Amino acid sequence: MQIVCLDLEGVLLPEIWIAVALKTGLKELERTTRDEPDYDKLMRYRLDILDREGIGIGEIREVIGTLDPLPGAVEFTEWLKSRAPLVILSDTFSQFAEPLMAKLGHPTLFCHELVLGGNGHISGYALRLEDQKKKAIKAFRELNFGTIAAGDSYNDLSMLQEADHGILFRPPEKMKTEYPNFPVTEDHEDLRKQIEKRLQ
Amino acid sequence: MQIVCLDLEGVLLPEIWIAVALKTGLKELERTTRDEPDYDKLMRYRLDILDREGIGIGEIREVIGTLDPLPGAVEFTEWLKSRAPLVILSDTFSQFAEPLMAKLGHPTLFCHELVLGGNGHISGYALRLEDQKKKAIKAFRELNFGTIAAGDSYNDLSMLQEADHGILFRPPEKMKTEYPNFPVTEDHEDLRKQIEKRLQ
Repeated sequence: MQIVCLDLEGVLLPEIWIAVALKTGLKELERTTRDEPDYDKLMRYRLDILDREGIGIGEIREVIGTLDPLPGAVEFTEWLKSRAPLVILSDTFSQFAEPLMAKLGHPTLFCHELVLGGNGHISGYALRLEDQKKKAIKAFRELNFGTIAAGDSYNDLSMLQEADHGILFRPPEKMKTEYPNFPVTEDHEDLRKQIEKRLQ
Repeated sequence: MQIVCLDLEGVLLPEIWIAVALKTGLKELERTTRDEPDYDKLMRYRLDILDREGIGIGEIREVIGTLDPLPGAVEFTEWLKSRAPLVILSDTFSQFAEPLMAKLGHPTLFCHELVLGGNGHISGYALRLEDQKKKAIKAFRELNFGTIAAGDSYNDLSMLQEADHGILFRPPEKMKTEYPNFPVTEDHEDLRKQIEKRLQ
């Protein structure tokens, strides 16, 4: 029996922080791990901006509620859930993802949580587990599942390497040349075919 | 962050073998682990009857396709998926469960598989893992989830004991007195309240 694990942002959903930056007009929020590789520094920077602008979880969720899953993602998720157990492995926060997860029919999501203070103030964040994507795949292997994983960027790498079958979805050019062993897919139809081929 | 694990038959779905017995008129298939505690013996007995009657996976799935989730189970599952990551832990077989899982919106299911020969003949079964329910809960704890589990019978016991919070759903009378520490729920509204109370 096989299980399929997917990254969330970039595979099924738009990049949430980028979308929030666009919708709020706060260009500073476009900064990503590519600009600031220290994740904790990046998150502090983002939360400081929200603080300064008086933006709480309510406003953020309102913005996120106006977003939609990537084109084709809803149908793809529907198909995948009917073919194999599906677990989404993401480093997003449950309170951010929720309005969009509803639009995907709430597939099972393993992620992290924001720490909320009074009045919807975002006071911090709690990583559930370091390198949780890789560790989840390892746990599923120990539960005697064959594992198929797909993701779009460097923070998916350890998950893709730990899985029996790793698949790249719209990765950066650099990643394609650095990791030529992973098949590269550019749309959901393509990803569907690559997963189907690996499902026994 | 917390995860919720549910047993399937008796909690969300009717007991599939009992339903198959009723629908096919084969009363011998009503035998359960209560009558024959040796699971392998019981499965051999069931598969021998199917063989004798010339019933393959196609016929069984047709019968199962006419069944429905327990009253209230669809709404309960919808609610639960919106509140927490949900994984169904069941000792059923994926090929049996599929037609009914579709009616539940395909929540993530960890179970076992039938071994199919030519022409839909059921030649055997493959347990993915011994005591998989308990081991899944243990794996989720190691992935730093708080764990809430609900089930209806003795084969859920090790799962309920391993979880941070175990809840009984319509258990046999004997089980209530033997395990008074688990709260007992008798319908999905009740189960919902007990889970909600334990979700942080």
